[in-house]
Amino acid sequence: MISKANIKSVKSLHQKKIRDAHNQFIVEGEKMVLEAIRWKSDFLVALYHTSDFPTEEIDATKINLIAISDHELKQISGLQTPNKALAVFDKWPLETVNIPFYIALDGVQDPGNMGTILRLADWFGVEEIICSMNTVDCFNPKVVQATMGAIFRIQVRYVDLKSHLLALKMPVYGALLEGENMYKSSLKPEGILILGNEGNGISEEIKQLIDYPISIPRFGEAESLNVSTAGAILLSEFFRGTI
Amino acid sequence: MISKANIKSVKSLHQKKIRDAHNQFIVEGEKMVLEAIRWKSDFLVALYHTSDFPTEEIDATKINLIAISDHELKQISGLQTPNKALAVFDKWPLETVNIPFYIALDGVQDPGNMGTILRLADWFGVEEIICSMNTVDCFNPKVVQATMGAIFRIQVRYVDLKSHLLALKMPVYGALLEGENMYKSSLKPEGILILGNEGNGISEEIKQLIDYPISIPRFGEAESLNVSTAGAILLSEFFRGTI
Repeated sequence: MISKANIKSVKSLHQKKIRDAHNQFIVEGEKMVLEAIRWKSDFLVALYHTSDFPTEEIDATKINLIAISDHELKQISGLQTPNKALAVFDKWPLETVNIPFYIALDGVQDPGNMGTILRLADWFGVEEIICSMNTVDCFNPKVVQATMGAIFRIQVRYVDLKSHLLALKMPVYGALLEGENMYKSSLKPEGILILGNEGNGISEEIKQLIDYPISIPRFGEAESLNVSTAGAILLSEFFRGTI
Repeated sequence: MISKANIKSVKSLHQKKIRDAHNQFIVEGEKMVLEAIRWKSDFLVALYHTSDFPTEEIDATKINLIAISDHELKQISGLQTPNKALAVFDKWPLETVNIPFYIALDGVQDPGNMGTILRLADWFGVEEIICSMNTVDCFNPKVVQATMGAIFRIQVRYVDLKSHLLALKMPVYGALLEGENMYKSSLKPEGILILGNEGNGISEEIKQLIDYPISIPRFGEAESLNVSTAGAILLSEFFRGTI
């Protein structure tokens, strides 16, 4: 059972300004909620679940479990087909990492792309993604769902991208249509790979910081690649020499 | 101006069974419609456009142009933000091709993935995609939009996948989690690369036809990759040795 006030407060987390103000966000669906608990149970605020959610798989003594009806789940969910559970989490603090290779996003807007890039980072073991302030919020529910769990393992840092890149003092690689053929570049995962906005690419300000402009050779007619598939190809090229 | 009957008939093309019955489909938005006319003007049935569509860029003598209002465009559009034009096209006949490398899709369901894979094929110059009958319709409006124009250049053939693969008599590569490390496989774009369903991967029936199971090594924690990013990485690996 969930009160009207509670419904309203959970639903409000679909908005970025409320997520920012409360420092909380939403995770939905059986698989994602179980994954979230596995990695970040200390930050769970409340778990709203229907009767078919497998509560036996979690340590219920430590968790604020709230049984609700399918109808109530539908009221708080942002999914077309709600799936057994919705959890509210506190955002966890970012840790200082000192890693050899970062992905930086300069104005990526589409939640599906952002989620897919997080999932890619998780596949290739890139522990932190650096984002310009105008990049889509990684705690947007659509991003969270598209990460397939990577959001619980990879940290996303929003910064003034220009000054952050300068402070890192690492080689900066930028994916550009007119860069050097990446297949000939002997790429190693040491530095920062910048991926740009879906329509406009990397901004002029950030382009000036690129030490190594690289590009994916084209064999056919397509004008461009989607940012997440371009990112996939580039990451593979950076890592392929390491095994 | 567009009649009520006409609105109904255009809107019905958002449904697969009507597209199949009439052998027609929809293209939306200024850029995509101009691209469609550039490549496939012979198959244009009607172009519905608002007053700000650049009709001067097309040969209006050859095209059935129908000026409509923004409100009318909204009525026939499937986009959240309709953009100046919607065109109805006849599907064009498939040509017989004899190419060294195909992509085959076994049950890919998500229109965004399908569109992205078409765009990838277009980037790498793979002229035909072979699909199992349960793969999403390539003329689904969401697929068409996600291809960014590739649908006008790459042909998509729906077949009984098993018998088609057997008839092609080409080496079959399958993307599997437990395949051979693709970085060590010296891949060449000669044969057929099979990509499977988002949740279940390649079906058991088709798995048995795979001559070379290959996989993308994992460096981090993610359980899997999205089918379109996995496809991107594999295609790059197949083509990287050819230039």
